[in-house]
Amino acid sequence: MTDKSSVKFNRICFIGIGLIGSSIARAARLHGLADEIVCAARTHDTRRTALELGVVDHAYENPVDAVKGSDLVIFCTPVGTYGAIAGAISPALEKGAIVSDVGSVKKMVVDAIEPHIPDGVDFVAGHPVSGTEKSGPAAGFAELFEGRWCILTPSAKSGEAAVEKLSAFWTAIGSNVEKMEPAHHDLVLAITSHVPHLIAYNIVGTADDLEEVTQSEVIKYSAGGFRDFTRIAASDPTMWRDVFLHNKDAVLEMLGRFSEDLTALQRAIRWGDGDALFQMFSRTRAIRRQIIDAGQETAEPDFGRTGQHEDDA
Amino acid sequence: MTDKSSVKFNRICFIGIGLIGSSIARAARLHGLADEIVCAARTHDTRRTALELGVVDHAYENPVDAVKGSDLVIFCTPVGTYGAIAGAISPALEKGAIVSDVGSVKKMVVDAIEPHIPDGVDFVAGHPVSGTEKSGPAAGFAELFEGRWCILTPSAKSGEAAVEKLSAFWTAIGSNVEKMEPAHHDLVLAITSHVPHLIAYNIVGTADDLEEVTQSEVIKYSAGGFRDFTRIAASDPTMWRDVFLHNKDAVLEMLGRFSEDLTALQRAIRWGDGDALFQMFSRTRAIRRQIIDAGQETAEPDFGRTGQHEDDA
Repeated sequence: MTDKSSVKFNRICFIGIGLIGSSIARAARLHGLADEIVCAARTHDTRRTALELGVVDHAYENPVDAVKGSDLVIFCTPVGTYGAIAGAISPALEKGAIVSDVGSVKKMVVDAIEPHIPDGVDFVAGHPVSGTEKSGPAAGFAELFEGRWCILTPSAKSGEAAVEKLSAFWTAIGSNVEKMEPAHHDLVLAITSHVPHLIAYNIVGTADDLEEVTQSEVIKYSAGGFRDFTRIAASDPTMWRDVFLHNKDAVLEMLGRFSEDLTALQRAIRWGDGDALFQMFSRTRAIRRQIIDAGQETAEPDFGRTGQHEDDA
Repeated sequence: MTDKSSVKFNRICFIGIGLIGSSIARAARLHGLADEIVCAARTHDTRRTALELGVVDHAYENPVDAVKGSDLVIFCTPVGTYGAIAGAISPALEKGAIVSDVGSVKKMVVDAIEPHIPDGVDFVAGHPVSGTEKSGPAAGFAELFEGRWCILTPSAKSGEAAVEKLSAFWTAIGSNVEKMEPAHHDLVLAITSHVPHLIAYNIVGTADDLEEVTQSEVIKYSAGGFRDFTRIAASDPTMWRDVFLHNKDAVLEMLGRFSEDLTALQRAIRWGDGDALFQMFSRTRAIRRQIIDAGQETAEPDFGRTGQHEDDA
């Protein structure tokens, strides 16, 4: 309904230019959605990489310099940094600008940023539900958001026109867009993303600590299932620390349910209750089928893994 | 060290012809390791499929008929069926035959089969650590074992020559072969395979049970990490029920450690201990790197998932 010309920005500013920021920048460039793309990044290395890759036109150390003249500012740093940065850039934000973010939690983000948004500026929190286990500007790619969902969580300072424009931006780079209450977002993502990451990190840690099984054995026989978990357990540690610190209530709620259910399975194993195990293991196939049918997963066996044999003797 | 000619069998018999059995059969055919390949399968559908696909030359309903004249017999049914089948086929086993299996637990398998092995027949339990989430004879493929490890657990009735011949067979179809004590195998696989499957089944069940988050939301936002778990939670329920019933002690031991570690992470989240979370999340990247370096995993981001966007509008 909104054509691409209506979502063009003069200058898009990324605060932080890792996997997600650099992927949005590449996609915006590819689809001609910005005249100029800039970023703020703390380290010289990141700024140089982003410039060398052509992901941004200018890279600044200080976010205040980066946001000047920008009509779209997107926070792409770990969520724990948002409050301080929002306070710092507040006076430099242009009238009419839209401020957004890509953080994996939303209630805390609204609370941290919104008080710093001046009159005449809109704030629309957002979360593209996509990514890989890689980090940094070189890991980004323009197609990352294609067919994935981006959740916007409008709040008090989200003008309707700004929500529509940001929605059209995400649609233009291939996303499906959904609007949601921030607190509901945090509950949904706790089960679809946060707790899965926590248990993946956890089992990789448990395996690493064993005395009776060597690390070499864990690695050799990881194709039994374990290796799947190491992928998300290779995700950025700072980003994930901040997610868990800032979505505490929803994560603890979902984790409590997970542990309760696991205890029931443990009991079925201890008492040899094969019927309970079979019943549990039978109901879970249907969900994968639905995820594949919804276009959110490959139908290929084993994720269509390729290339891992190429170097074998 | 053993050339392929020395591992040729006259007639290989698969008891059960699902994903694993049919993959071995295809690989044996591809590499010319058998003059004749037969199977026993309970259902008419499975026998017809295996015959139509050319995976076997003959398919029998009764395992006793299938093992006659076979010099290699491989159990490929759920491990809970092994004892009864071994008792039934025992009188029909040919002198000089090797009996093996592909079960995911080994101590119980040795206990269930070995008493039924007559003099003049060797028994060498085995476990190829490979597979996909698919089931049935049509899901098999000859390359499934390439670069993966196959664990043999020789026991009282495993003659040295039989162990060497079976080892050469697995090597010929692309596997790396390792020998191990049955009980140690069960401990290693509890952490690299069984507990990962259990927690994957468990979180998919937890998500399915929620009242506050709809199933449609779980499916739409599964790319946040959840979808990874649905792959192994789509594995064959009968096979996995039997694994947990027959590797109880090792699974409960590893599950206890997993839960203990998860409780520590839960506590760190509740008390806002960011340092503990960061430290835990930082140590797990190295393990994935080692799995990739060992040729047991693709280095591609996101498992190199492909094709899931092709049907998107």
